Amino acid sequence: MKHHSKTPMDHSPYGQSFTLWRDGCPTAWQDYTDHAFVEGLRSGSLPRAAFLHYLVQDYVFLVHFARAWSLGVIKADTLDEMKSCARTVDALVNHEMALHVTTCAAADIDEATLFAATEEFETLAYTRYVMDAGLHGDYLDLMAALAPCCFGYGEIGLRLAGSAEPGTPYQDWIKTYADAGYQNTMKAVGRMMDMALERRLGPDPTLSPRWPRLQHRFATATRLESAFWDMGLRAG
Amino acid sequence: MKHHSKTPMDHSPYGQSFTLWRDGCPTAWQDYTDHAFVEGLRSGSLPRAAFLHYLVQDYVFLVHFARAWSLGVIKADTLDEMKSCARTVDALVNHEMALHVTTCAAADIDEATLFAATEEFETLAYTRYVMDAGLHGDYLDLMAALAPCCFGYGEIGLRLAGSAEPGTPYQDWIKTYADAGYQNTMKAVGRMMDMALERRLGPDPTLSPRWPRLQHRFATATRLESAFWDMGLRAG
Amino acid sequence: MKHHSKTPMDHSPYGQSFTLWRDGCPTAWQDYTDHAFVEGLRSGSLPRAAFLHYLVQDYVFLVHFARAWSLGVIKADTLDEMKSCARTVDALVNHEMALHVTTCAAADIDEATLFAATEEFETLAYTRYVMDAGLHGDYLDLMAALAPCCFGYGEIGLRLAGSAEPGTPYQDWIKTYADAGYQNTMKAVGRMMDMALERRLGPDPTLSPRWPRLQHRFATATRLESAFWDMGLRAG
Amino acid sequence: MKHHSKTPMDHSPYGQSFTLWRDGCPTAWQDYTDHAFVEGLRSGSLPRAAFLHYLVQDYVFLVHFARAWSLGVIKADTLDEMKSCARTVDALVNHEMALHVTTCAAADIDEATLFAATEEFETLAYTRYVMDAGLHGDYLDLMAALAPCCFGYGEIGLRLAGSAEPGTPYQDWIKTYADAGYQNTMKAVGRMMDMALERRLGPDPTLSPRWPRLQHRFATATRLESAFWDMGLRAG
Repeated sequence: MKHHSKTPMDHSPYGQSFTLWRDGCPTAWQDYTDHAFVEGLRSGSLPRAAFLHYLVQDYVFLVHFARAWSLGVIKADTLDEMKSCARTVDALVNHEMALHVTTCAAADIDEATLFAATEEFETLAYTRYVMDAGLHGDYLDLMAALAPCCFGYGEIGLRLAGSAEPGTPYQDWIKTYADAGYQNTMKAVGRMMDMALERRLGPDPTLSPRWPRLQHRFATATRLESAFWDMGLRAG
Repeated sequence: MKHHSKTPMDHSPYGQSFTLWRDGCPTAWQDYTDHAFVEGLRSGSLPRAAFLHYLVQDYVFLVHFARAWSLGVIKADTLDEMKSCARTVDALVNHEMALHVTTCAAADIDEATLFAATEEFETLAYTRYVMDAGLHGDYLDLMAALAPCCFGYGEIGLRLAGSAEPGTPYQDWIKTYADAGYQNTMKAVGRMMDMALERRLGPDPTLSPRWPRLQHRFATATRLESAFWDMGLRAG
Repeated sequence: MKHHSKTPMDHSPYGQSFTLWRDGCPTAWQDYTDHAFVEGLRSGSLPRAAFLHYLVQDYVFLVHFARAWSLGVIKADTLDEMKSCARTVDALVNHEMALHVTTCAAADIDEATLFAATEEFETLAYTRYVMDAGLHGDYLDLMAALAPCCFGYGEIGLRLAGSAEPGTPYQDWIKTYADAGYQNTMKAVGRMMDMALERRLGPDPTLSPRWPRLQHRFATATRLESAFWDMGLRAG
Repeated sequence: MKHHSKTPMDHSPYGQSFTLWRDGCPTAWQDYTDHAFVEGLRSGSLPRAAFLHYLVQDYVFLVHFARAWSLGVIKADTLDEMKSCARTVDALVNHEMALHVTTCAAADIDEATLFAATEEFETLAYTRYVMDAGLHGDYLDLMAALAPCCFGYGEIGLRLAGSAEPGTPYQDWIKTYADAGYQNTMKAVGRMMDMALERRLGPDPTLSPRWPRLQHRFATATRLESAFWDMGLRAG
């Protein structure tokens, strides 16, 4: 019993679970990764105000994303899972957020302002949904809700690195996610998720009764990513 | 359609904490309790499709509201707090949700459909924000996030019971919240919240350094109530 | 004092999952259900001081057991699971704890004293282990940790009802758990757990990679039950 | 209204909150920090079997301690609190546990064995009590439960560094906690806790109605430390 008919098997470098989840909601995934906001980053046409509005909210998002990965440490079953989650918390708090802080500082927005920014509904919805996925379910429920941000930014970063207009002012953003550091981290996270699924659901996780629910969590988080871009554009 | 100006002595029957929180964000509170959706319930002009869309989402909301009050049982410090939260879970699961089930059944929507309804972003944002308020903070953080729904519906129910157009088809909804059962429960919940605040913050909770944060939680949940009504109207 | 040898068909009235879990740790289960404390309840030889010490700690245990079942409401996937957990919280807070309150009142220990009792290490270990099983895992992890108390007391109650010395002063305790009300509730809880396992792990949950971990949770909670009886005897 | 009469004010380098908590349960604190197990480390008379038994359980303890500090990231109110908790998770997972792994490897116990070790009741009681302190309350409840381990090991390490018998085989253990790295980290954690208390309870946290409960949490965790040493000795 295999998923043998997916002929143009576009295996992602981020692992099999992600590939299955992504291919399980192709429209939602395309809406997210090909969003007008992303095209604006690529072409450079994205208004600066929209980018800064997004960046402030994304800073708040990362605060909660670090909380969600900390919940991963709490819910892990193996030492490798614990270490993977703890490393990600460290990467978020001490590295990825630095891009936001630096870019915002150049626009006269300091970190205390970022931390205290009023959250848009889209930020609230996405971040708290992920947290509650972890409280409600187990480690896998949390991972399925965390995956779209991790790997979607990875895909977008890679694609834009190869297609961005030379003059786009958003090269720093693109480099952050196209960078080998980010890409390698995401490959490791993808492997960890594959092992986490196999450990709990067996060698073919799609045969588990839990699979549709995990797919649903991934798709919901993907829809919330699109809404997050919409929110950014609204301020443009 | 506005609230008349408040004298400084407009104490709510739902207790002092609620009065302080409500009067600490008057515009947000008025946006919520005088919303066009509420006026539509009063006058009867609310489209049936909008009401049903709201009701389905509100059913999902109540599922998560019952989860949030269950988190209250977990976070309570006293037996009275535990019992108050447990009673509210019972009231939600076994009584308030019954209105939704009955009304939706009349529109050929069964309870399994309600439970499995796709959540709108506004539903996600509000419900998960409340859950996370409890995970993030203590019992008071949770209560501040739960209060706007409890007492706002109480205020709206009472006001509409005295002002609704006789022909409005939404009398059952109005009665549910104007009803002495609901009103008395909310008075008891308000007293419990007053005692919970005093127990942890002392006789004047507004002097505690924590007060602004609790006020912020109440105001955020109030804004999310308005967004919930907006969501209902969108489907009209 | 031993259980008679089990035929392979000794299905418990509390369902298949419990039967499997119980038969997966037979020595630990017998240590718990045939403990000297239980024999003391049956014969009447248990010192009153030991019983009262146990009862005070068991009251504190039930407070946390109600918290743990509330966590079940939070972690449930279906409306039936939510209702089952909410009913159990209500039964614990409003019924089972009443036995403790009444019995302790007769010994001049009031409910405020019970609620504020200093917890023994065995009480801390057991109650917090169950709570953390829920935070760490999903609904099934929580159920596996809740099961030994539910069904062990059911088995003990039934057995003692048929074998107690007529003069034992612990007839009220025995009746509480032999009672049709308690037994029927436990049968319903057992059915709910069977359905919860099938829903997530498929028709034969023992084939799931998660089974050993669930069995381990059940066995750990069973060992903690024996330690709880030991603690009671220590005070005799 | 001041605590003015504590004349021989033995201010700890780990901050004012810890000093107050420690001096609020002097007998329990002395039982813990002057325990026979500690004296055995100092003099070298502690049987190797007792030390190894302790070390295996302490490894499991650190796994859960890392989970508890991760819960701190989730419950933090400020970026500094988040960073402090995240740094501690990293220090535990990537540094302190290394001592255990190295020492146990020399006794032919590998890390997989450590991670899978059967937990003693004392380990269960202590670790899950700390986790539940965080789930039940807010950031301060968690900090009060985390403090005895952090600062008690700091005090013990410093004292033994100045008084250990030259021939004690437990110099590595002593150095781990007497080391400037550990000591400076604990001073920073102490400052963070002082600020966390002031931020939520005002300049004199002992005046808050919550103080007795925080003191109780600290004292309970301190008693659980003594029980943990007892457990170690049992295996000697």
